[in-house]
Amino acid sequence: MSFLESIQLDPEILLDAAARVHRLKMYPFFDIGHYVLSILMVREDLATGATLFSRKHPLSCWMSSMLMCFGGTFLANFLLGEPILAPFKRHDDVLLASVVWYLVFYSPFDIVYKLAKFLPIKVALCILKETQRAYKVHHGVQHAMKLYPNSYLIHVLVGTAKGAGSGIIRTLEQLIRGVWVPAQNEVLRPTFATKACVAASILFVLEKETTYISAPHDLVYLGVVAFFVYFKLSGILLHIHDPFAPFENLFCAVFMGGIWDAMSRAIAASRERRAHTAQENGAVPSEIKKDQ
Amino acid sequence: MSFLESIQLDPEILLDAAARVHRLKMYPFFDIGHYVLSILMVREDLATGATLFSRKHPLSCWMSSMLMCFGGTFLANFLLGEPILAPFKRHDDVLLASVVWYLVFYSPFDIVYKLAKFLPIKVALCILKETQRAYKVHHGVQHAMKLYPNSYLIHVLVGTAKGAGSGIIRTLEQLIRGVWVPAQNEVLRPTFATKACVAASILFVLEKETTYISAPHDLVYLGVVAFFVYFKLSGILLHIHDPFAPFENLFCAVFMGGIWDAMSRAIAASRERRAHTAQENGAVPSEIKKDQ
Amino acid sequence: MSFLESIQLDPEILLDAAARVHRLKMYPFFDIGHYVLSILMVREDLATGATLFSRKHPLSCWMSSMLMCFGGTFLANFLLGEPILAPFKRHDDVLLASVVWYLVFYSPFDIVYKLAKFLPIKVALCILKETQRAYKVHHGVQHAMKLYPNSYLIHVLVGTAKGAGSGIIRTLEQLIRGVWVPAQNEVLRPTFATKACVAASILFVLEKETTYISAPHDLVYLGVVAFFVYFKLSGILLHIHDPFAPFENLFCAVFMGGIWDAMSRAIAASRERRAHTAQENGAVPSEIKKDQ
Repeated sequence: MSFLESIQLDPEILLDAAARVHRLKMYPFFDIGHYVLSILMVREDLATGATLFSRKHPLSCWMSSMLMCFGGTFLANFLLGEPILAPFKRHDDVLLASVVWYLVFYSPFDIVYKLAKFLPIKVALCILKETQRAYKVHHGVQHAMKLYPNSYLIHVLVGTAKGAGSGIIRTLEQLIRGVWVPAQNEVLRPTFATKACVAASILFVLEKETTYISAPHDLVYLGVVAFFVYFKLSGILLHIHDPFAPFENLFCAVFMGGIWDAMSRAIAASRERRAHTAQENGAVPSEIKKDQ
Repeated sequence: MSFLESIQLDPEILLDAAARVHRLKMYPFFDIGHYVLSILMVREDLATGATLFSRKHPLSCWMSSMLMCFGGTFLANFLLGEPILAPFKRHDDVLLASVVWYLVFYSPFDIVYKLAKFLPIKVALCILKETQRAYKVHHGVQHAMKLYPNSYLIHVLVGTAKGAGSGIIRTLEQLIRGVWVPAQNEVLRPTFATKACVAASILFVLEKETTYISAPHDLVYLGVVAFFVYFKLSGILLHIHDPFAPFENLFCAVFMGGIWDAMSRAIAASRERRAHTAQENGAVPSEIKKDQ
Repeated sequence: MSFLESIQLDPEILLDAAARVHRLKMYPFFDIGHYVLSILMVREDLATGATLFSRKHPLSCWMSSMLMCFGGTFLANFLLGEPILAPFKRHDDVLLASVVWYLVFYSPFDIVYKLAKFLPIKVALCILKETQRAYKVHHGVQHAMKLYPNSYLIHVLVGTAKGAGSGIIRTLEQLIRGVWVPAQNEVLRPTFATKACVAASILFVLEKETTYISAPHDLVYLGVVAFFVYFKLSGILLHIHDPFAPFENLFCAVFMGGIWDAMSRAIAASRERRAHTAQENGAVPSEIKKDQ
């Protein structure tokens, strides 16, 4: 609490920090964090076959890595009817992602892969990636607002697509590698990252288009960054993988049929009990009758 | 026949009715009919797993229901390079569809589902839905005409996509629920709804861009509505599922290789017979020769 | 060599021929070559089931044939966010492709299919198709240049998509026929046609946007046509299916981990050997110790 209090005592320092975070340039360091972790996901998905696959199918390997790196923009552009290839317009980004891809898969003695898996470095990469994720969600929401000023649902969907797109198009990415896992997709079992992007998108929409949130914009943005980083790190360090789960379970129990199902079961049980009591109280069961 | 005659006697009443049908507002009642039946299809496809699935994966359930409700617009927008998310611009529609989805899957004691399956109500919903389908086909054809004035094929395709889109993107909708049935799709075995949409689209194109059809536009529109409703009801009540089937079989028998295949078979058979006759008439079979 | 020398002696004839080739109209003959070979691919993929399938599912058969015929334009339009249906704007093209489809699948006594498989005719069709491919690649690169003037990567991708699109969307085409082969796709194991389109796209980009290639544009175009035709014919007549393979293998051996893998193996081997030598030189192995 003393930490929070000391922050509350210095609102100017906090606001200054928030403004700095908001104006951070993503290229190159934050992008590198995102690229390394995205490509690590491809490599992890290949499991023990990674070395062989990357040697035998470099094109497929590169393509699926790019799809993960730029998945958010691909998906958002697809949903908005904009050119899907647009992320390839900036050569710097593609070049950087390709260099990262090369290093993760082909570096001598696998040193880059081993380093990226080393906990302190992984934590640093996660901080970079989650900061970039907040930036992308914010960017997506803002972009959708310009196109469709009053369609809140589209703002939230585009914000989520930008922030968690690589998870959503995972099924397609696997198909490019010749792997087909239809029974597992992001919509069926959303990961925490996707849910967090939905929450952040809603927050940004509320902040921009309603008067419910009166905090300065920079501070809201800093809050989202802190939220993303905090829960990502708690996932890595404390193995708390889904802080939303209890709320979801509660929500599902109340609204998604839980209450009614319980009531139906209760009624069915009470009916059964009544029938049983009626039997015991007088009516001789038919089976006993037969025996006599 | 007396019914038809009485209509022919009162062309003004008919024209007036046609004009009214053409100017009907789809929102909310006709849309509700469409939403209920679309979401029922999702629930039916889940079969006995519907209750468990809707409790365990509400997001996937909602997403696939929305995909069925707005499938026509999604597909038409995709084909025309327009923003795919566009149907989400109107909050009223999405909200209405979501409420219907909630009621179909989570209503207490499953009352809404049971009501919707009750025959008289189902018939009413079908009438609403088919009227809305005619509206959508007409809308799709008109929209495509504005974009590509002389491309009849595109008009027909967009009209069909709008009217029968949810059937066509079914494979994708199933994928969102983690089910993958590649061997069954709408193009492989088109349902009557899809074929009817093709026929209606062609009719609208003929009516608007040629002089073959001289009936007033409202009357053509009413005819299409009647055609959709009539055959849908005959499907539900009389179990006539595909009135096009005989025509198709005839067409395939004549043009899709049937005649040539028959001719080839006839020639092969006659050749065989001639060879057999030649054998009997004198030439001693080689096997008998060997024996001697 | 004398052939090449004689060409070098008459640069004017060559330039004139190149200009003619560049200004060739694709419709109808070159398009026919492309359509016949594309639809043959669909038929070949159906193998022995082709006759039965084309009789039972004419719509699916037509749709997947159209997808192969216009695959390049579909894919390029999809990637650039342009209307996917655009190739259906020109009725002549669709009509021609449909007639070719009809003849390949339903001609009396299968005569068109048998003719198209007859070697001299197949060679002629291949020459037409490869000339058309060069035209499409050039067209794709030029179109992308107009849209995104400095994005070389997009130029190459769109050029490749236009030229080899039907191969890339093969997985989707098979899905329309109810066949699902996820483990085999163009990105995983690119065919020579795709690689040649990448090479040709790069050449066109180099020629238009850099000063590395000083040859006249018509001559570069003629070179690409000759390159496509030459390697296609060497594939059909001499069964040389991938002239790029040796270069690729060399490239992969050097850059895609080959060298580092070899070095790792060498180090591991030398370590083992050293350990072995150390054992022999004095240290008594632990197993022998136990025995004593």
